[in-house]
Amino acid sequence: MPLDPQRFLDDLHMLRSFGASGVGKGVVRQAYSEADIAARKWLAGRMTEAGLEPHFDPLGNLFGLAAGRSLLVGSHSDSQPEGGWLDGALGVVAGLEIARASREAGGPLISCVSFQDEEGRFGVLTGSDVWTGKLALDAADGFTDSAGNTLAGMRAQMAELTGSFLPHERFSGFLEMHIEQGPYLEETGLGIGVVTDIVGIRDMRITFSGRQNHAGTTPMHLRRDAFQALSAFNAALNSRFANVVTPATVWTIGHVALHPNASSVVPGCVEFSMQWRDADAERLAWMETLVKETAREIAADHGVTAELGPVMGIEPAAMDTRFQAELEAAAEVSAPGKWRKMPSGALHDAANLATVMPAGMLFVPSTGGISHAFDEDTPEADLVLGLQVLDRAARGLAV
Amino acid sequence: MPLDPQRFLDDLHMLRSFGASGVGKGVVRQAYSEADIAARKWLAGRMTEAGLEPHFDPLGNLFGLAAGRSLLVGSHSDSQPEGGWLDGALGVVAGLEIARASREAGGPLISCVSFQDEEGRFGVLTGSDVWTGKLALDAADGFTDSAGNTLAGMRAQMAELTGSFLPHERFSGFLEMHIEQGPYLEETGLGIGVVTDIVGIRDMRITFSGRQNHAGTTPMHLRRDAFQALSAFNAALNSRFANVVTPATVWTIGHVALHPNASSVVPGCVEFSMQWRDADAERLAWMETLVKETAREIAADHGVTAELGPVMGIEPAAMDTRFQAELEAAAEVSAPGKWRKMPSGALHDAANLATVMPAGMLFVPSTGGISHAFDEDTPEADLVLGLQVLDRAARGLAV
Repeated sequence: MPLDPQRFLDDLHMLRSFGASGVGKGVVRQAYSEADIAARKWLAGRMTEAGLEPHFDPLGNLFGLAAGRSLLVGSHSDSQPEGGWLDGALGVVAGLEIARASREAGGPLISCVSFQDEEGRFGVLTGSDVWTGKLALDAADGFTDSAGNTLAGMRAQMAELTGSFLPHERFSGFLEMHIEQGPYLEETGLGIGVVTDIVGIRDMRITFSGRQNHAGTTPMHLRRDAFQALSAFNAALNSRFANVVTPATVWTIGHVALHPNASSVVPGCVEFSMQWRDADAERLAWMETLVKETAREIAADHGVTAELGPVMGIEPAAMDTRFQAELEAAAEVSAPGKWRKMPSGALHDAANLATVMPAGMLFVPSTGGISHAFDEDTPEADLVLGLQVLDRAARGLAV
Repeated sequence: MPLDPQRFLDDLHMLRSFGASGVGKGVVRQAYSEADIAARKWLAGRMTEAGLEPHFDPLGNLFGLAAGRSLLVGSHSDSQPEGGWLDGALGVVAGLEIARASREAGGPLISCVSFQDEEGRFGVLTGSDVWTGKLALDAADGFTDSAGNTLAGMRAQMAELTGSFLPHERFSGFLEMHIEQGPYLEETGLGIGVVTDIVGIRDMRITFSGRQNHAGTTPMHLRRDAFQALSAFNAALNSRFANVVTPATVWTIGHVALHPNASSVVPGCVEFSMQWRDADAERLAWMETLVKETAREIAADHGVTAELGPVMGIEPAAMDTRFQAELEAAAEVSAPGKWRKMPSGALHDAANLATVMPAGMLFVPSTGGISHAFDEDTPEADLVLGLQVLDRAARGLAV
């Protein structure tokens, strides 16, 4: 039987019923929750029905294995604490449908996968971090969620299901379909994005400490106001970045904590987050230099001290050029002129997979650019178009 | 007996023992607390010993009355939740000493006072707000503190002590000595500040609402980032104020609340405080126009909406020119060349008193400009100098 779009949509809606939030199409299906484990058991059953061998590794990553070395297609089925129905789930069910249809058609060999804890209840991309060797299982086991549960304790709940870690050599490459989680495709009227790179991230905390003072009795020229330093830093950095960035570079001050945060007190201290993302590691380093220089200069100008926290980094990951080319060719067949190459500003399991095998990734539009929210959505026609492009590329790459 | 500086200092240290924090010279003596009521009873006893008639009004404002129409000298003896030993207490004990010494010397007639809840456990300057008619007692009675206690309930604890409200006509004018609570006198090496005006305050909340988005997948040009709007507003306002303000004008953004305040999310919303102070009501109004215009313009530029909360206002209060002149003359006798005229950036009971009688006010230095903290302090020589200047002016004005 060929690819069956209706079966794909039916399975996608069925997966949504595990942890359905009751608000729109939203889901509450965090890694290792009752709903997540139930969903994985159901997925394993669907794999068996399709003639694929279900295999849980020690983390709870669920593979649906074809009968030999094969292309791997999938994503993750855990959700954010308040998540949408497509983030991860779309790629998992697309992988299931493509592997199933290929087996029904007599080949080529295609396996599917749902990674565990991509949403970082415990780490960052915990399941694929451990499987690809970026993170040691011992270290991961000590991670705790916001309620204080350890990963070791939570994965023990799945112990009766799990076997060993699979060797990477079992797979010839990895394909992942995902919603864009941003507004670009929708706003430009495109149906498909072929991912060129998954951007790297730099994230740090900066603290400006000045002097807390009475907001009535402290003349402006004697103030060492931490908020004024932050505002000046932000303006100066925006100006300096202008000569360094590309249209795909992003940077964000998303967290700000003033102390004492009272309307009648000159703020003595501000701690804030500074995050920037780009596909080019050299540009990330250049931006880091500008962030640090600007923070120190502004601090000196404003009579405050700058404390620069450690820079947390996730490296950019380029998608395999052959996989990109195959996805582009498939997109041009199914959606001529309606696709574009683009970087991914969000992290995905494909970034980890790219360190151990050739990897490729495809985006479909996100309605309103919304994700990590109950009202995340995509028109079903776009989901099916994505499935068809991914299937064509998979059959080309798996031969 | 003439003015007795040692008796004044002894009483000041004795008052400090009520609610002593055990940290430096700090005190914890909020209005209507056990320590506050005990301190007021002790003060009433000292008044009686001095031949002054103690009188509590319904709020718990404590007067030490001379035997006829008289000049009133004092301040407040309640403290901040974590307060210093001089804020208010200095002016109360100075009033007690000056009234006592004047009575011992056979005149002129001088009364003293400790107002209640100047620190705003319930309102703003609650005791003098009600006595001067700015605030109705019924309305004040409904005010609650941060723990949910009502003013009516708390003042009922003092009911057995209290009598009626005194007529303002009983007093010919009001003098208040206070620590500066700012760095100006200390940093300029001066001993005395003669207050010209108590500045007016305008305070409002502004909310910028943009669009909360993923910090990785949302290109810079499609963002509606509430923090960026705040930073641009601050920069634009600083620039526009430059042509409007005097060196004594102050303005502060002291409270900032981003939503959702996470490093990986473009902030969708920011609520912040905007406060400005000046002695000139016209300038305050001009600044209000600039604040509102700038908020609306920046919001439009940044694709966010601006919600402007109500503008809370306290009017500027000019000190009486004759009282100022008398304080200046007295300062020139005791501290020749070591005093200056200055506005008060903080609120004081004298601002209320100025609406019902001539009022004057005198500052002594604050060590390090620190107040509303346990380490608030002033050298005792400066306290005594202030007492002597205030006494000389009081005797001149009370004649």
